[in-house]
Amino acid sequence: MNIALDMMGGDFAPEELVKGIRDYMSDNPPATVSLIGDEQKLLPLLAQYKIPAKTYRLIPSTEVIEMHEHPLKALKGKPNSSISVGFHLLSTGKVDAFISAGNTGAMLIGSLYTIKPIEGILRPTIGTIVPMENGATGLLLDVGANADCKAEHLNQFATLGSLYAKNILGIEKPRVGLINIGEEEGKGNVLAQAAYPLLKENNQIHFIGNVEGRDVFLDHADVLVCEGFTGNVILKLAESLHGIMERQNVHTEYFDRFNFEDYGGTPVLGVNKPVIIGHGISRAKAYKNMLLLAQKMIETQLLEKMALSFKA
Amino acid sequence: MNIALDMMGGDFAPEELVKGIRDYMSDNPPATVSLIGDEQKLLPLLAQYKIPAKTYRLIPSTEVIEMHEHPLKALKGKPNSSISVGFHLLSTGKVDAFISAGNTGAMLIGSLYTIKPIEGILRPTIGTIVPMENGATGLLLDVGANADCKAEHLNQFATLGSLYAKNILGIEKPRVGLINIGEEEGKGNVLAQAAYPLLKENNQIHFIGNVEGRDVFLDHADVLVCEGFTGNVILKLAESLHGIMERQNVHTEYFDRFNFEDYGGTPVLGVNKPVIIGHGISRAKAYKNMLLLAQKMIETQLLEKMALSFKA
Repeated sequence: MNIALDMMGGDFAPEELVKGIRDYMSDNPPATVSLIGDEQKLLPLLAQYKIPAKTYRLIPSTEVIEMHEHPLKALKGKPNSSISVGFHLLSTGKVDAFISAGNTGAMLIGSLYTIKPIEGILRPTIGTIVPMENGATGLLLDVGANADCKAEHLNQFATLGSLYAKNILGIEKPRVGLINIGEEEGKGNVLAQAAYPLLKENNQIHFIGNVEGRDVFLDHADVLVCEGFTGNVILKLAESLHGIMERQNVHTEYFDRFNFEDYGGTPVLGVNKPVIIGHGISRAKAYKNMLLLAQKMIETQLLEKMALSFKA
Repeated sequence: MNIALDMMGGDFAPEELVKGIRDYMSDNPPATVSLIGDEQKLLPLLAQYKIPAKTYRLIPSTEVIEMHEHPLKALKGKPNSSISVGFHLLSTGKVDAFISAGNTGAMLIGSLYTIKPIEGILRPTIGTIVPMENGATGLLLDVGANADCKAEHLNQFATLGSLYAKNILGIEKPRVGLINIGEEEGKGNVLAQAAYPLLKENNQIHFIGNVEGRDVFLDHADVLVCEGFTGNVILKLAESLHGIMERQNVHTEYFDRFNFEDYGGTPVLGVNKPVIIGHGISRAKAYKNMLLLAQKMIETQLLEKMALSFKA
């Protein structure tokens, strides 16, 4: 298997990427990597960090989509950007997965228009890992790709999230909870009220009912489903806790898990091939984790299982 | 001024209420109280805690609306309940404010149907105090009274919240932020996109733009505006942090402020008279604080200012 990396994306590119690749390769993984970027910048770093030549190939790119460029315009106007080249490699089957910590919007749009949604999926989604107080790990989705949703979208997120939780997080029978503002069926806003019966009838998931804000970190559910507005607010609020903890000089094993830098990005769930979007502030550890995640998505045939699940 | 208390509402009623009254009265406040409840239960406690007879009058009530009763049915079916009696006293001008930690739904519905919205206000709202990392105190609203909102509702919440922040929190020129999932105008879901221009044009507030989840606790805005779904999720998530901190054995001055028990309830903003809904788990300190809040709402003529602000 071969995983492509956008070597120009992220605040600490390309050096932290090279360090992440070194750490990943040190475990003799089954994958090789395609490194997309500026050869002149990459070659000395690859030498410096002693990346074995047989583990990578260099794919030159001459442009970079900057963090604040308009995603669609940039993708169209910069066909030789590292992100555009990455999507081209992935869509033509030259690589098996694509990772970038660059412009998030461009990564989302590239996923939707170049890689395309799995047949039957209305809205691909992005999620985030949720560190549970008891040590478990959950998944919250959507966290911002879909600010406005219909009930059927939430229902699909639940199925996608369950497959992810089972295959990637190793949870045999993931409990799905609907983020809501009351415990009983019938509570909530119009969307949550409409989503509840769909989730209850979805035989591809194990739906356990509503989950309130107070339950998010308490491991009441493995897969937490909501529209991307609420999910994004929760994610960013949780991210901010890490900084607050640092400044308050609070260090516990649990709260150290709020360092979202470590997790290594979020996969775009519901498109035909593995695409992973990294946090702009990713460092070596995050890049290594993104490579491991891409490898696991390929090894577990997650996307094939998703496609099967949505086959009419 | 006279403040009515539902002595039967809340998990620790009536004893913690009596203790809260004792603590409030020990500062020789300008208010007396009307205590609504079961005389047989209250008289021994009032004697035990030495509440001076001149500071209170007893208003007997023979029924209680339980926490899980259907609010509307209960209000209609139990006209002699402590909550029904309280709203009757307030609506007929026999008291100047009403406090209860009983059935939240019944308190909301009583506020809407007995006390009624201030003329011009589409949707009365409830908010919560937000402890900011730098020591400041903000206000988040709506936190659950209005799960689905239109842009104009959010705009009115902003005006109500600003008046509250100015008069009760003592913030001279409260900064209003729109909870959103992006920084720039035009970002967000359909509701946030529609609310932004209304907030920008609202000359009764000082609008500073969008505020993301990561900024909620960082004092970027004094008044944080959103619909009641997102607001309720944020509130309950924040409340859960206090329990997690306790269990993680984390104690800092800042995180101790996440003990929402202490704050003493949330006022219903946008109705004609001061109504304060307490948390079910309120104890003496919370009841004392609710009494102080009611007193301040009366003293600052907050509701008169709100009415003036919405006068066409």
